[in-house]
Amino acid sequence: MLNRPKVAIVMGSDSDFPIIEKSLKILDEFGIETKVTVTSAHRTPEITAQFAKEAEEKGFEVIIAAAGKAAHLPGVIAAYTTLPVIGLPIQSSALDGLDALLSIVQMPAGVPVATVAINGSENAALLAVQILSVKYPELREKMRLYREKMKETVIEKNSKLQEKLNAGRFV
Amino acid sequence: MLNRPKVAIVMGSDSDFPIIEKSLKILDEFGIETKVTVTSAHRTPEITAQFAKEAEEKGFEVIIAAAGKAAHLPGVIAAYTTLPVIGLPIQSSALDGLDALLSIVQMPAGVPVATVAINGSENAALLAVQILSVKYPELREKMRLYREKMKETVIEKNSKLQEKLNAGRFV
Amino acid sequence: MLNRPKVAIVMGSDSDFPIIEKSLKILDEFGIETKVTVTSAHRTPEITAQFAKEAEEKGFEVIIAAAGKAAHLPGVIAAYTTLPVIGLPIQSSALDGLDALLSIVQMPAGVPVATVAINGSENAALLAVQILSVKYPELREKMRLYREKMKETVIEKNSKLQEKLNAGRFV
Amino acid sequence: MLNRPKVAIVMGSDSDFPIIEKSLKILDEFGIETKVTVTSAHRTPEITAQFAKEAEEKGFEVIIAAAGKAAHLPGVIAAYTTLPVIGLPIQSSALDGLDALLSIVQMPAGVPVATVAINGSENAALLAVQILSVKYPELREKMRLYREKMKETVIEKNSKLQEKLNAGRFV
Amino acid sequence: MLNRPKVAIVMGSDSDFPIIEKSLKILDEFGIETKVTVTSAHRTPEITAQFAKEAEEKGFEVIIAAAGKAAHLPGVIAAYTTLPVIGLPIQSSALDGLDALLSIVQMPAGVPVATVAINGSENAALLAVQILSVKYPELREKMRLYREKMKETVIEKNSKLQEKLNAGRFV
Amino acid sequence: MLNRPKVAIVMGSDSDFPIIEKSLKILDEFGIETKVTVTSAHRTPEITAQFAKEAEEKGFEVIIAAAGKAAHLPGVIAAYTTLPVIGLPIQSSALDGLDALLSIVQMPAGVPVATVAINGSENAALLAVQILSVKYPELREKMRLYREKMKETVIEKNSKLQEKLNAGRFV
Amino acid sequence: MLNRPKVAIVMGSDSDFPIIEKSLKILDEFGIETKVTVTSAHRTPEITAQFAKEAEEKGFEVIIAAAGKAAHLPGVIAAYTTLPVIGLPIQSSALDGLDALLSIVQMPAGVPVATVAINGSENAALLAVQILSVKYPELREKMRLYREKMKETVIEKNSKLQEKLNAGRFV
Amino acid sequence: MLNRPKVAIVMGSDSDFPIIEKSLKILDEFGIETKVTVTSAHRTPEITAQFAKEAEEKGFEVIIAAAGKAAHLPGVIAAYTTLPVIGLPIQSSALDGLDALLSIVQMPAGVPVATVAINGSENAALLAVQILSVKYPELREKMRLYREKMKETVIEKNSKLQEKLNAGRFV
Repeated sequence: MLNRPKVAIVMGSDSDFPIIEKSLKILDEFGIETKVTVTSAHRTPEITAQFAKEAEEKGFEVIIAAAGKAAHLPGVIAAYTTLPVIGLPIQSSALDGLDALLSIVQMPAGVPVATVAINGSENAALLAVQILSVKYPELREKMRLYREKMKETVIEKNSKLQEKLNAGRFV
Repeated sequence: MLNRPKVAIVMGSDSDFPIIEKSLKILDEFGIETKVTVTSAHRTPEITAQFAKEAEEKGFEVIIAAAGKAAHLPGVIAAYTTLPVIGLPIQSSALDGLDALLSIVQMPAGVPVATVAINGSENAALLAVQILSVKYPELREKMRLYREKMKETVIEKNSKLQEKLNAGRFV
Repeated sequence: MLNRPKVAIVMGSDSDFPIIEKSLKILDEFGIETKVTVTSAHRTPEITAQFAKEAEEKGFEVIIAAAGKAAHLPGVIAAYTTLPVIGLPIQSSALDGLDALLSIVQMPAGVPVATVAINGSENAALLAVQILSVKYPELREKMRLYREKMKETVIEKNSKLQEKLNAGRFV
Repeated sequence: MLNRPKVAIVMGSDSDFPIIEKSLKILDEFGIETKVTVTSAHRTPEITAQFAKEAEEKGFEVIIAAAGKAAHLPGVIAAYTTLPVIGLPIQSSALDGLDALLSIVQMPAGVPVATVAINGSENAALLAVQILSVKYPELREKMRLYREKMKETVIEKNSKLQEKLNAGRFV
Repeated sequence: MLNRPKVAIVMGSDSDFPIIEKSLKILDEFGIETKVTVTSAHRTPEITAQFAKEAEEKGFEVIIAAAGKAAHLPGVIAAYTTLPVIGLPIQSSALDGLDALLSIVQMPAGVPVATVAINGSENAALLAVQILSVKYPELREKMRLYREKMKETVIEKNSKLQEKLNAGRFV
Repeated sequence: MLNRPKVAIVMGSDSDFPIIEKSLKILDEFGIETKVTVTSAHRTPEITAQFAKEAEEKGFEVIIAAAGKAAHLPGVIAAYTTLPVIGLPIQSSALDGLDALLSIVQMPAGVPVATVAINGSENAALLAVQILSVKYPELREKMRLYREKMKETVIEKNSKLQEKLNAGRFV
Repeated sequence: MLNRPKVAIVMGSDSDFPIIEKSLKILDEFGIETKVTVTSAHRTPEITAQFAKEAEEKGFEVIIAAAGKAAHLPGVIAAYTTLPVIGLPIQSSALDGLDALLSIVQMPAGVPVATVAINGSENAALLAVQILSVKYPELREKMRLYREKMKETVIEKNSKLQEKLNAGRFV
Repeated sequence: MLNRPKVAIVMGSDSDFPIIEKSLKILDEFGIETKVTVTSAHRTPEITAQFAKEAEEKGFEVIIAAAGKAAHLPGVIAAYTTLPVIGLPIQSSALDGLDALLSIVQMPAGVPVATVAINGSENAALLAVQILSVKYPELREKMRLYREKMKETVIEKNSKLQEKLNAGRFV
């Protein structure tokens, strides 16, 4: 891949970075170029709109938008671009992210946001990879290996548990 | 009042009009000029932004924004204006407006939306009047009369109930 | 497009077809080939697994999976394929689809499902188109026109409302 | 502004003061005079009613009322005054403020409360400023600057993040 | 009982009467005098306060207060009297009475409201009877008979079901 | 009061004692005799039934029943006695007491439970006092003083806050 | 099977029979003897306790208990027997069965209730069959056939859908 | 019991082991053989399916499946076996296990999962014992003793509380 596929990650507040960091690591593992931007649907609406409008011509192919509370960011970005937008609800309010989840997923007909779990930053990244795999066969191949590795991790964890149980270390 | 105070009412879909109509009637009763606009945060984001940016110079002093489901409209408008924005959650989804309520009320610090009850269109209008009353003393006076009339309606309903109960029409 | 892009639509019960029909119409409008299959995560688990495993080699590039109640179908399919899976929660239980929404969106790290709104069948289809647009530039172009048309519809609805209001047909 | 505009802040319990303090700071920044009062809708109902009835003649133009749990304070105050009342739900119960939010926002037709987010004390203050701006143009001007500063803060946070990311301090 | 015990029933809106009617019937069966009043916590706050303050001297010994949505009525009445107040949440909003339930039951320490089920008007009446039974032994005796009759109704319903099942009328 | 009125307090688990302790203190302040019993609706159903059946003849006039999770204890006790039963939902599960609240308050027609707030142990005790006041005028008098004291506490807290604010200790 | 296995079905109200009827049909299909009883945890607590205590010696091996609202019936029965008790939440309240679900499933440690979906009467019966299959191998065999038939029904529904789609009857 | 009955315990992640450990201890107390396996519905779907298909022939008679978040594991296993499957929702997400509870309990007609409380690992084990007791009378006998012991524990806790209260150690 001479030209690495590019994913834009947007978050409403820099306090969301620890969540976003997991997305970054996964995208990096897959050799995907990323650009993280702090911009707010409400505090910097024009920058956000501008960002969304230019995303495609800047070469981004997927956008991940993370937000908590009223969480309008993913929907606002989706309104200004036809790139697929992945919405990542952040658990940052008294309502533990249920508000953000509903605000992101319940988009009206016409402008979808591909929503993942509350704080599901790994899955936001993996979904981006799966979307890009539609175009980039080498990403699909990597995703197969990633899945294979996940499978092996589970198998290994199971083996270790069996050892511990056999050794009577539990119960 | 030579120049009648002006309130803008915005809704994401014309199917919300039956709800909004109650707001219109109340504002009209108070002699407030209204302008109703259909514009969507997601389908016509630029028109929505433009609308919000120009609202003040067009002479509007309060904006009522009604929306269901993800209900980003009030928050998006609030981001582009410093006029007070009243958010009216519409009961139009499988979740009966709880999604809209949370999306509208849980705004992040910096850009408030004055939220009223789900489908609470009368209250959206009355809140607009109360806000305008800060500036227009004649509206406050009218509001006092309105409250007085409400009180009398309750008293009258109570009297009628007593009559019916005394007449043994119930129980 | 000699080879039309292909989207598989899966639903757990044929009673979900009226919801799915809207997805079909939209995908058809975009010239996307579709295949609708009734298969259940719980009643026909092996057929479901087989379906998911073969989907890629059968030429599907995106899968839309609709389900109500416990709604495991999208997640189960996502476990057997690396194609992007769009999860569509159906409002078919006493809990009005909130159960289906949470079951679909709260996937554990490793296997994402791109979730849309409860009964959001139009958006499931549009998200599929936006995902395919990453690969097929002509779909992006069509999507732009689709957005443009949506915008015009809103503008037109607004104009009609203005006419009615000016004609004093309301209030 | 010779006569500074005045906002009354009411809270049901002095334990809510740490939340209210943020409102105070913001109102102070805007040069608005404030008066904080502890009074309870249930423990001191007559003082609360008296407070609300006299608020206008004492020169207050907006009231912020904060309450947790059953959270009747904002609604009770709104019943005794035609001043705009801003309701601030406090996260102080087993239900994390959802009870307070619903109690405050779901007011019946006739007596609105302008509700902000759970623990959204900054927004309660900013909404008060925006309401007062209808009358005091200098407050609108200050609000524009406040928004501008918010915008710059976001831009600055974004710049710092870019620096850190470029310096490889993350990932 | 020369002097029949007296229960006051208060409701925020006359539209709640069909629910309240069941309470009336039960209290009447028990020979309890009732007085139904329409008064609103928000539209007629002073009448409500006056009502609550005078309830005891007017000879009422228990108050039942029914309300929907923000449902402040029971709590507001409880603030002005030391009579036991029974709160009856009415299912009259988009949230099906969950808002009313939380507003009524989550009272702060100091002023309790004895809350019954959403639309649980029979139980509001029966609870009033049980409370009055603390003082009036003849009511307790009647309550025992009432319970006995309920028991017999269940037994009878069971017998009828057995007949139908034996007659093969079901299945 | 030669014969002090007696209130039985029942809890499903001794781990609920720290919550119940506040009820005890208040009842003690009012000179009410209390008996606390640990008994479970599910682990000791016969003891629970026996307890409820004998409560009246043992001289108890009100029962407070505290329970978490499925929280059947108050309802089960109410089924075996015609004494007024106050249900106190305990916040002891993953659902923070919402499960207990609904299990206690949503009793079917025929057998009411007077429900107070989640963890609202003070109010459970105060409600018991208010119920007993129907019979014992001296308790009503004490309750009036209690309310008066509460009022003074609020006034005092307000005064202290004013002092601090005037001293510039805040903001 | 000379002695057919026996399942007791208990419901709190005969109005739940239409739901229970589906359980009856399925159990009948599997050749299981059933006995349906109307008994209430609150209106006939002693009959309910007696029923549960005698269920085992009367030859029942599994109990299905259906209840709505506070839904204590399954838990109360489980407290008096060591037979497996299946809890079936009924959608019969303002809260659409969520109250019943939580009341049934959130049982405290010590006395489990095997809970199925709201109104999930088929599954209550099928779970009873699966439990009985632990002892009766012929039931397991029948269950395998039942599953096979379910599978064929899904396959057939899929075939019919394909026909209709090919015939262009949709879209 | 020469051949001890066997229960399989499956969990989606080894991080759930601390919860599962309580199930293990109880099953061990009852002399039931257990096998704990880590396998994921999504990361190792084929191993999970294989496990479920072979469970019966490997001699397992009941399966306990624990899972958090989308929690498909119990349902997926239930789809591949006719053994009774007990679903144990784990509190491991932002939504505190409500998502897992709904995903597990709201299974569609045809494939039941016997659901217990969120984190209710003791009850998962006890339900398994009660199910096995249908076949193994000695387990029923042990369960009776277990219940007896539980009862004694409650009685003892009550006695200790009485001692403490009498000694004036509380209040």
